[in-house]
Amino acid sequence: MKNAVQNPDLARFVEAGTLYLSAPEAAELVRRQGVAACIEAIAAHIRADFLRWADFDKTARVAAHSKDGVIELMPVADDHRYSFKYVNGHPGNTRFGMSTVMAFGVLADVDTGAPLFLSELTLTTALRTAAMSALAAKTLARPDSRVMALIGNGAQSEFQALAFQHLVGITTLRVYDVDPAASAKLVANLQGSGLQITVCQSTAQAVRGADIVTTVTADKAMALILTPEMIQPGMHLNAVGGDCPGKTELHGDILDAAKVFVEYEPQSRVEGEIQHKDADFAVTELWQVLRGERAGRDSAQQVTVFDSVGFALEDFSALRFMMDSALRLGMGERIALIPQLANPKNLFGSLNASAPAAGARRTVRLAA
Amino acid sequence: MKNAVQNPDLARFVEAGTLYLSAPEAAELVRRQGVAACIEAIAAHIRADFLRWADFDKTARVAAHSKDGVIELMPVADDHRYSFKYVNGHPGNTRFGMSTVMAFGVLADVDTGAPLFLSELTLTTALRTAAMSALAAKTLARPDSRVMALIGNGAQSEFQALAFQHLVGITTLRVYDVDPAASAKLVANLQGSGLQITVCQSTAQAVRGADIVTTVTADKAMALILTPEMIQPGMHLNAVGGDCPGKTELHGDILDAAKVFVEYEPQSRVEGEIQHKDADFAVTELWQVLRGERAGRDSAQQVTVFDSVGFALEDFSALRFMMDSALRLGMGERIALIPQLANPKNLFGSLNASAPAAGARRTVRLAA
Repeated sequence: MKNAVQNPDLARFVEAGTLYLSAPEAAELVRRQGVAACIEAIAAHIRADFLRWADFDKTARVAAHSKDGVIELMPVADDHRYSFKYVNGHPGNTRFGMSTVMAFGVLADVDTGAPLFLSELTLTTALRTAAMSALAAKTLARPDSRVMALIGNGAQSEFQALAFQHLVGITTLRVYDVDPAASAKLVANLQGSGLQITVCQSTAQAVRGADIVTTVTADKAMALILTPEMIQPGMHLNAVGGDCPGKTELHGDILDAAKVFVEYEPQSRVEGEIQHKDADFAVTELWQVLRGERAGRDSAQQVTVFDSVGFALEDFSALRFMMDSALRLGMGERIALIPQLANPKNLFGSLNASAPAAGARRTVRLAA
Repeated sequence: MKNAVQNPDLARFVEAGTLYLSAPEAAELVRRQGVAACIEAIAAHIRADFLRWADFDKTARVAAHSKDGVIELMPVADDHRYSFKYVNGHPGNTRFGMSTVMAFGVLADVDTGAPLFLSELTLTTALRTAAMSALAAKTLARPDSRVMALIGNGAQSEFQALAFQHLVGITTLRVYDVDPAASAKLVANLQGSGLQITVCQSTAQAVRGADIVTTVTADKAMALILTPEMIQPGMHLNAVGGDCPGKTELHGDILDAAKVFVEYEPQSRVEGEIQHKDADFAVTELWQVLRGERAGRDSAQQVTVFDSVGFALEDFSALRFMMDSALRLGMGERIALIPQLANPKNLFGSLNASAPAAGARRTVRLAA
């Protein structure tokens, strides 16, 4: 009674279940291919997906705010694939030895709803955020940019550094964090990268002389990390850390004097640096610049701002890369997240099937 | 540097990862406890959660519609726990040997965002939908109801039958499906249940003499499963199958002549039988009746309709039950959906950790 399944990803799902990539396996997958190579590949996937922006069913993420943080769902789909990410933001988590940001997500088949791929996205989110930042900077920053200030040296900072080194041509970092241990960790992690790194004593000192300023701080507050007197003509500001209502990093006057670019305007109006601005404050969606439909930087003196909040499409792109990589490398395992029924109209009857042996492994490994 | 984690569910997550209950293990969990007992327990959880309706951060589900079906995310949260369900509806899936409805979901900790529990929800959705239907009927149907017509004998039908037998007191079923094989499957599955079952040749024949009419059909269309001349005074209609835009089961005149109850009004206005009615068409949310704040059935002659679409809170309740059951029975396995980092501020550094041995099992079993 079964029709043949044509799509190979779907055929594997029907045969063996959802492909699951755990956090340790995702780390191994990245190690095998190299961090910079993964970021470059994800940036290429993001670029390709942003170039076909109109193909996607887009929606602002659904956020559940609580006293200590936020939990968000980020769905997006085209005609073939659907994805969502679950991600939290809880700045106080490190007191329990837990990450501030934890994430996982699913890539599914639109024609059947089958969840093809379940993956960790904590590490992957850091990769895709860095890829997105670098793609934007490559499009918006002055082409001769070589020096980047990196404000906030937490979990995402090294990924940003490598992305800008390999995709944008940054050679020198000026780093600052309120916690000197964070900067020391960054310096240690980037030894051997070829980046010249200066640890600074203040944001103002770090920003001085920079071509690009990346802010990736974690406090859930209206912070004023960057103030107008720090900003020089021609700078590109990559504002990553201000990404939900009540969480911003830039003084409003900086935005007024700059040209501001966003990912998905309806979401950025709520979550981005522009949340304090009027609804008619001018912004340009980055995909328009990538497609050549709108101008990016207008002059070498203009200050450009990428008001980044993270959009579901970036996770869609990253999930495609992680799934394809896992299949190619023969990584991940198949899990029975969905019942495999002899007769799908007989869910009840499946309860009478013999029980699996106690302790039996319920996952199988498939060749790529 | 770690603070002690007080919450035992969170402590287990920090120690060993997310508890994962696969589809085969969920079926085993239900077998061990009994289908009817599970439905009764889930109904009790739903009732308890509906009684504290105001405690929840509620939102209509986020749906992605496509040519052949729909994929939905259904989040909800109180001050302590957050849940979401992923669920699809693709009536054509059975041609590939796949289920029309497939689902999974997560129960998470609001204070930290930690995903405590990942579970199959395909079987669980059938259980919770039946539990919700029976809870509503117990509240709204005439107390002397003994005969139920069951229109649509697909994957959910046996669960509805058992729920109404054990929670409402139904003794006799009159069943109909456009596919006689579906009815035959239902009869076979319910042998030994104690229910008297008559297979009918039409919806009209099945409905004749019934106290309660349950419609649980799967077509994604404006169907007219029930028409006004079939309806007798005092009936309770449990309309389960009409649950998304363009998918209804009842003739509009039936609604006009009845008292209509819904789960969560903003969602039901879009997805329920009332989608064709004006925005001021009177409905009562069921929680109001459960709390005694609004009347249920006004007379023995009144026709009552539970216009059920399925609300995220029901999955929240069901996930709580499945997680507690799994912990109590020592079922499920722990998976590393989130990286366990020696220093959560050093995500990059974790990439330098030694690779897991090839093929090594990355899950551990924990005692309850």
